[in-house]
Amino acid sequence: MLVVYVYESVSLVSADPAALDSLRQQFPALTNKAYFNYGGQGPMPQAALEAIQRAHWKIQQEGPFCGQINRWLQQQAEATRQLMATELGCPATAITLTEDVTVGCNIPLWGLEWQAGDHILLSDCEHPGVIAAVQEICRRFGVETSQFSLLDGLDQRSPVEAMAARLRPRTRLLVISHLTWNTGQVLPLADMVRYCHDRPQPVWVLVDAAQSVGSLPLNLTASEVDFYAFTGHKWWCGPAGLGGLYVRPALCDRIHPTFIGWRGITTDDQGQPTGWKPNGQRYEVATSDYALQAGLQAALSLHQQWGSADQRYQRICQLSHYLWQQLQTLPQIRCLRQVPPESGLVSFQILAAGQPAPSQHVSLVQTLESQGFMLRTLLFPHCVRACVHYFTTEAEIDQLVGAIKTAGSA
Amino acid sequence: MLVVYVYESVSLVSADPAALDSLRQQFPALTNKAYFNYGGQGPMPQAALEAIQRAHWKIQQEGPFCGQINRWLQQQAEATRQLMATELGCPATAITLTEDVTVGCNIPLWGLEWQAGDHILLSDCEHPGVIAAVQEICRRFGVETSQFSLLDGLDQRSPVEAMAARLRPRTRLLVISHLTWNTGQVLPLADMVRYCHDRPQPVWVLVDAAQSVGSLPLNLTASEVDFYAFTGHKWWCGPAGLGGLYVRPALCDRIHPTFIGWRGITTDDQGQPTGWKPNGQRYEVATSDYALQAGLQAALSLHQQWGSADQRYQRICQLSHYLWQQLQTLPQIRCLRQVPPESGLVSFQILAAGQPAPSQHVSLVQTLESQGFMLRTLLFPHCVRACVHYFTTEAEIDQLVGAIKTAGSA
Repeated sequence: MLVVYVYESVSLVSADPAALDSLRQQFPALTNKAYFNYGGQGPMPQAALEAIQRAHWKIQQEGPFCGQINRWLQQQAEATRQLMATELGCPATAITLTEDVTVGCNIPLWGLEWQAGDHILLSDCEHPGVIAAVQEICRRFGVETSQFSLLDGLDQRSPVEAMAARLRPRTRLLVISHLTWNTGQVLPLADMVRYCHDRPQPVWVLVDAAQSVGSLPLNLTASEVDFYAFTGHKWWCGPAGLGGLYVRPALCDRIHPTFIGWRGITTDDQGQPTGWKPNGQRYEVATSDYALQAGLQAALSLHQQWGSADQRYQRICQLSHYLWQQLQTLPQIRCLRQVPPESGLVSFQILAAGQPAPSQHVSLVQTLESQGFMLRTLLFPHCVRACVHYFTTEAEIDQLVGAIKTAGSA
Repeated sequence: MLVVYVYESVSLVSADPAALDSLRQQFPALTNKAYFNYGGQGPMPQAALEAIQRAHWKIQQEGPFCGQINRWLQQQAEATRQLMATELGCPATAITLTEDVTVGCNIPLWGLEWQAGDHILLSDCEHPGVIAAVQEICRRFGVETSQFSLLDGLDQRSPVEAMAARLRPRTRLLVISHLTWNTGQVLPLADMVRYCHDRPQPVWVLVDAAQSVGSLPLNLTASEVDFYAFTGHKWWCGPAGLGGLYVRPALCDRIHPTFIGWRGITTDDQGQPTGWKPNGQRYEVATSDYALQAGLQAALSLHQQWGSADQRYQRICQLSHYLWQQLQTLPQIRCLRQVPPESGLVSFQILAAGQPAPSQHVSLVQTLESQGFMLRTLLFPHCVRACVHYFTTEAEIDQLVGAIKTAGSA
């Protein structure tokens, strides 16, 4: 079953040009370029930059290390987990603060009790870092891995069916992106989780949520997903270096901490370890750049002034639909998707003699960057990726399409 | 064999009061308090705070995600590894950037190929987070662990002898601090490493260098130590959230990456993983707060203006000797060390009826904090810890000792 997202004919506060312009001016990075790399890293609002600096100053003024600051840092961490949980639709106790989405993927991968012969199923659209982690687990524990294809039959085949055909009796874990980083496809998460959990031998689902958090409306509790690893520095427009992991509360005691430090453990009155914290903090390790939490809080607070998560997502889809339509008009450009995109990611290929031309992708991105348009290439499949956020303008899209057209005819 | 550090009668640039005052004014945290928590977190110089902010601005101005910024970030990371390597006396290729010292300890702990029955020997002065990581490895792989005591016979017994008596035929790893966080003892690292490597079945040595980096002069290559995990935010006075790990180059291929991401792997022209980076980068995972690197660089650059690492260390010892002597004059105060301290850490107990009184430690630290003196309690052994850095003043020490005396008679 394919999930169809209905986003036409929604009136949006963010579509008001004057208000949108005022919002955009709060992002220093947007003042001097046309930005289409939200899937790589989001720009930070001025308020987030200032909040980070203020937090550093507070820590220096009152500490840096003393009882008063240590209590404040604990409150900040708790507030950050609470904010993340509200966005994700889950309890704050299920949240682990991490450095990035990849650390969040590694925690359940290494925390499961693997048996030789177990099987891990991945989609063919996962990030190389996550693939490499799975391969090392296979090497160490005699676990097997294989992939099911989202690329074959993209736009035609149900992801649930593609996955179902490749599950094995010994499959213990499915690793998927909620929103794939290359094709921008949104997977029907709740359906896939339900299918996996309903197996005679239930399969747990680990989600790389790098692209979905901050772009899709979410309710993790309702989805029943097991592990959901995310970052604040892409679609949430927070600082690089702060992300999180959701672990379904019922599984907390089944996933052992691997990288371990003082933040995750409990101790006795002699300071000796006695066990794990009773919540997601058990997977946190040690000292981090705590000032980043204030930055992410400021970024989230800005987005919350712009309609609901649903409305922001619908605006993203309107804009990516527009970009996708414009790109279709260009000769030699082929979008990866044959249907209107259901996310802010629009990937396309330059065709030479009917085939994708990777070297032209590289030179196009370089040319565009020199002209102030920020996009990136991807290697699998070879393509150029343009991302639009809810505050991207139609004018930016027009300019981008014009620049691509000009570059193509140069 | 005990290592004796000779530090008397050294003339120091930092002992010049006017110059010292000028240095201290560069640390905002030192302007409004008497700071004795360098072992918890060092204060950041103004230049470091500004460098972080400048880096954030540059990233927003030119990026945040584009070819130009990504190249700059790679150069910054390389420069940071090079600076760390110069301080540590090792090649830059042997350095892994980490979030903190504990992550640096976890990398070799989880990267070794453990066999059931292997044994890990720890000192009894290790940090609870590291102890908990070792315990989890024991649980998962059937490895055994035990401790040798540095506390029994402190100041009398050679650490090499204490360790040697507890090594077992199946001991594969020794875990020690170079400078213990509770007693401030400096272990004879090169001697301990040599003893371990000369065993019929060589024992590798993992060092928790939380307290030694930035306070001791170091030459890791000469010490032949195997793994040395450190942080920038204590004695280096860099930002929290940036540390590193040294892995002896010959062991790089013996320690497998565990937490894995795009920063550690090599890929082919389809972006698929093909192996590990050929240096310490293989243990780096994914996105971090790269702006912190500029902060640490600024902090290191400030210290380098103040004599050599040897001279700074000698000044630290002069000052801690002075503090230790003054504390000895107070009734009811007993320093953990019976000999002059060989580091900036001076821990002491309040005695009640001849026994340490933990509740009085807590109330003393709270009272002192309310008066602007920052110290901390430790739970093992129960004590209060005061740290001095090379730029601590004798006047601060006099005031602290006066405040402790007053609190004791209140």
